[in-house]
Amino acid sequence: MSYAKRMLDTYATPTVDARVLAAAIDALSDCTQACIADADADLGDESVATMIPCIRLCLDCADVCTATARITGRPTAYNPGVIRPLLEACAAICALCGDECERHADTHPHCQVCAEACRRCEQACRDLLAAIEQGNQG
Amino acid sequence: MSYAKRMLDTYATPTVDARVLAAAIDALSDCTQACIADADADLGDESVATMIPCIRLCLDCADVCTATARITGRPTAYNPGVIRPLLEACAAICALCGDECERHADTHPHCQVCAEACRRCEQACRDLLAAIEQGNQG
Amino acid sequence: MSYAKRMLDTYATPTVDARVLAAAIDALSDCTQACIADADADLGDESVATMIPCIRLCLDCADVCTATARITGRPTAYNPGVIRPLLEACAAICALCGDECERHADTHPHCQVCAEACRRCEQACRDLLAAIEQGNQG
Amino acid sequence: MSYAKRMLDTYATPTVDARVLAAAIDALSDCTQACIADADADLGDESVATMIPCIRLCLDCADVCTATARITGRPTAYNPGVIRPLLEACAAICALCGDECERHADTHPHCQVCAEACRRCEQACRDLLAAIEQGNQG
Repeated sequence: MSYAKRMLDTYATPTVDARVLAAAIDALSDCTQACIADADADLGDESVATMIPCIRLCLDCADVCTATARITGRPTAYNPGVIRPLLEACAAICALCGDECERHADTHPHCQVCAEACRRCEQACRDLLAAIEQGNQG
Repeated sequence: MSYAKRMLDTYATPTVDARVLAAAIDALSDCTQACIADADADLGDESVATMIPCIRLCLDCADVCTATARITGRPTAYNPGVIRPLLEACAAICALCGDECERHADTHPHCQVCAEACRRCEQACRDLLAAIEQGNQG
Repeated sequence: MSYAKRMLDTYATPTVDARVLAAAIDALSDCTQACIADADADLGDESVATMIPCIRLCLDCADVCTATARITGRPTAYNPGVIRPLLEACAAICALCGDECERHADTHPHCQVCAEACRRCEQACRDLLAAIEQGNQG
Repeated sequence: MSYAKRMLDTYATPTVDARVLAAAIDALSDCTQACIADADADLGDESVATMIPCIRLCLDCADVCTATARITGRPTAYNPGVIRPLLEACAAICALCGDECERHADTHPHCQVCAEACRRCEQACRDLLAAIEQGNQG
């Protein structure tokens, strides 16, 4: 079990399903790790000149996932006005970064792993958005 | 002159006005500084229990401004699909944080300074969004 | 298997044991998650006024672990002059934060989980320091 | 006047000279900006393959300066056990990044600006270390 889930099990987070929330925090941390490592691997690649757009998107995606992991990681008193636009932005950027990494997946195994992390993170952000919506209606 | 502006003066950023861009990077750095210091000052305040919503918003605002400063700080090859939703989210969060800080401005001078930093940052994000829109049409 | 380990399996990191490195990156990400959640839970606690030193240390520890996770997450061309002092600083801060969280472990289950994350992170930083030393001698 | 200084003027920071502290926070924010912009400019350069070590150091330096700016930006209740090792690490990394950027200063004006930001930040970290030492003795 992840530390995000273990922490959430120790206190109440009234309006959001703790499993969906922990899955989002974990996916955001994983995507940050993958994007930082992918940009680094691209920088060490012989074909670095062709990987610049991938490096840029990975740097941007890591930064927005870092911020989103922090803000979703403070669930005690969610502010929907904060979390919704950020999750929307994060999902959009993960989608773009996943598309770019996928283009290099055949030739760069590290881009394949990173593309998968971006896809899972995009989905986890959308799942959390849906859970927040449901919690507000419930 | 800020380092953001000095850096931008050394290389070309085709589609965005360098002054608007540098003003946004500076406002995002300033707002990060102000929000981190304001949360810290609130934590040291005798009335800490009543300042919790302000602390939470300042922590969130600092995190999203940090990410947005980094991503706007890489202007060589802007991806509008990345920068637009993030600037929208950042402006929304700065507006909420500015509102909350303003509520305490009379009694907490550090909240007054922070409210001002949030307002300027919200405006700078919106100005950069307009400049990006104009650059894409030009 | 973590994304950090999966990424490292796709490319070579000459002088450091990939398992020790991946364990450090994972422990740093876990500790960041735990510290952010612990500060948030403290802010929601009735006894917030007595938890201020814990909140401060958790905020600091999360920030230094975030930076250290990023820098250890770029292993392709380690610079020992960068990574060594940062790992030393990170281990020292995790030790202090672990001590503080442990003081509240009996009454605050979230502090108990966070203390454990800090202890593991401190150890993982020291293990990576030892592995880097060994790699430089080998 | 910077927001860091304006914030510090609104509340007391007992043991450290507020001017030295504000100068450090500002230099850390400036160095973060410069390093992010320099890495981005390097990525857009025709000679990117020769700039990889500079890009790596700028990414690392930006991350450690971000963390150090946050932690020095919470001055209400300094913990010397946290701030000292981090300032030492940050000064060491700024020195290395400044050296690398200086190598390219003749041909890359953005590296010249970044080298200057790194030098100033290294000095500001050392000045703050000295002020903390003096404050503890005073």
